This record gives sequence, C-alpha cells and structure tokens, in this order.
Amino acid sequence: MRRFILYSRTGYTAPFSGSLQEAGRLDIVYQCTLMALFASHYIRRDTEFHAFIYGAPNPPLHLFIDGKSLRDVRIDEATWKRLINEAFAGTEHPGIRISKEGIETYVKTLEEMYVLSEKGINIQDVEFKSPSFFIGDHIGLPKKFEDSLVKHGAKKVSIGKERYLAASTVDIVNYILDNKLREKTQY
Amino acid sequence: MRRFILYSRTGYTAPFSGSLQEAGRLDIVYQCTLMALFASHYIRRDTEFHAFIYGAPNPPLHLFIDGKSLRDVRIDEATWKRLINEAFAGTEHPGIRISKEGIETYVKTLEEMYVLSEKGINIQDVEFKSPSFFIGDHIGLPKKFEDSLVKHGAKKVSIGKERYLAASTVDIVNYILDNKLREKTQY
Repeated sequence: MRRFILYSRTGYTAPFSGSLQEAGRLDIVYQCTLMALFASHYIRRDTEFHAFIYGAPNPPLHLFIDGKSLRDVRIDEATWKRLINEAFAGTEHPGIRISKEGIETYVKTLEEMYVLSEKGINIQDVEFKSPSFFIGDHIGLPKKFEDSLVKHGAKKVSIGKERYLAASTVDIVNYILDNKLREKTQY
Repeated sequence: MRRFILYSRTGYTAPFSGSLQEAGRLDIVYQCTLMALFASHYIRRDTEFHAFIYGAPNPPLHLFIDGKSLRDVRIDEATWKRLINEAFAGTEHPGIRISKEGIETYVKTLEEMYVLSEKGINIQDVEFKSPSFFIGDHIGLPKKFEDSLVKHGAKKVSIGKERYLAASTVDIVNYILDNKLREKTQY
C-alpha cells in the first residue's frame, strides 16, 4: 500500500464558485490526486491520497481519496472541481471522504513515514513496505510540522536536487516504487 | 534541449465553451503541458511542448508551447483552457503559437527522435543530446504514424511495463533526463 499526504496551507475549506486555483491553490490538490491515483485507463487501487487543508473559512479539513473504492470519475480538473465542491457540501461519492480532522491527529495513526526533502537520503537506497509520503504545497511543509514528523520517526528521503511541483514529486515516487516492486517480483 | 510531441487524435480544433475534457480530451494537452514545462516556481526554459491536434472541425492544428519565451501563465487547467481557446481564436500570447501544420511535415525538421514504447530499449541505457519524444494520447499513437517514425530513424525507448498517463510519461522522462544531466555534470 502507498499513501500520499499533502499539506495544503492555503486551500479554501468550504464550497466555492471560482476556479480551484483561486480557491487557495486547490489546483495543487487536484494535480496531486491525478498523479497519485491515475494511470492509463486504470486507478491505482493500492494507493491513498490525503489532503489536509488549512485555508479559510473552516480549517482543518481532511480530504481522503481512496484508490481502492474510487469510481465514476474522470481525470480532468473541471471534474475534480465539482467532486471537491460536492465533498465540501457533504454530498457522498464512492472513494471520496471528508472529515474535520487535523494532520497531527492523523499522523499518530501512521507508521513508516517519509518526508520528501532534498536533504534526505537517496530514495533509491530505501526499502519500502507500506510507506506514507508527506508532500508540501507551493509554499512547502511548515518547518514546525516537518520537525514534529521527524521526531515521530519520519525519515527524510530525496528524489534529487531539482525543485519539482508537488504533483511531479508524487508521480516520480510512484514511478520509483513501481520499479522497486518490479525488481522485487522478478526472479 | 528537450522536446515533447503529443499526438492528439481527438482534440477539438476551434474555440469551445465546455471543459477541456469535453473538447475531445484536450485535458490531456493541458496535463502534458503542465508536466513538460513546469517545476516548482520555475519554467523549464530548455523544453518545448508540441501538440498536433486531429479532432473536428479544423484538423490538423499544431499547438507549440515554448518554455523559452512562455510567460504570464499559471499552472491550473482553468488558465490553460483560456489560453488554448485564445490561441484557437488567434489571440497572441508569449510562448504560445498555433499553426495549420500536420505532424508528418513537422517530423521532417527533426533529428534524434524517440517513441515511448514498452517494447523499446531501457531509457536508462540511452544517451541523449537534444531529444524529441513522441507521446500518444489516451488511445495511443496511430500504428501507421509510429511505423513511419521508426522508418525515419526514431528509436523506441521504454520507461517500464506500466501503462502511464501521457502526462506521467512526460514527467518521468523529464526526471530521468534531469538525473542523467546531473550525473554528467558531476565530477
């Protein structure tokens, strides 16, 4: 199982009418969903995507998109603008859940945590079982939160020196895990 | 220099009012643009993205997005829906060009061409100088066009057995090229 957890500092936390970008950069939540869960003509059933959203007017919100049960979706932003808005409004959809939960509470339920950081150890050198990856938004993870993750046992891993988009980071981690899994199952 | 070339079989080829998805899957053009050209807070100035669009009512169209001169853009789909529509309507924007050109004509101007294919040689084993990568849409490259590319000297390269989204493929190739470049410049 794989889990990606995005910390959205600014995402709007109630139904909205403008674009996802205008709603406190919720476009990043969409882009990460796309790259976490979707491949060509299939959904990654072993993957979870979580966004903890801290913008006005109702923070924090925990948006959980579960690859296992997600269905009846398309992969474009306009579709996900509708789905996120519906989730904010309390409409149910298979595989999409919303709750009033902060990230610190959620972290306590996790083991095998990783923070993406260019100062981390090379991700190629790590063996993963059932990892949870923490990703920052366009501003990055709050320093205090990152420190508390490390105190709770999270390891810093690096995919390189480049500063990638959050969604690219998710995509690249998926690719690296795909390769590791393939090597492991080859005989 | 890097160049990504998407063959969009179904993308709509005139101004439209619905979503990019409804416009013959132009959402894929957006997603590939995002992954080809954007990193965290910067544009890849050494990268070009081209889409050849073959849907109704005015095919073919050649949409060229040039990382070198692109500016005044955001990275969300709603922004790119506007920009693509404006390009279709003839409005100019720095780094975005549209022309009435088919992909076969364009191919003749290129050297060092690659087709992403799971049957290709491992991309890690290839040395790139100034590569052009051909990517299929949700249906894939037309067999006949792929064959003609190979006849013109294009090589098939593989990033693995998984079937990734077109945008993920672009993103992963960027990542692999970033790594290769880093290795080369290290002493």
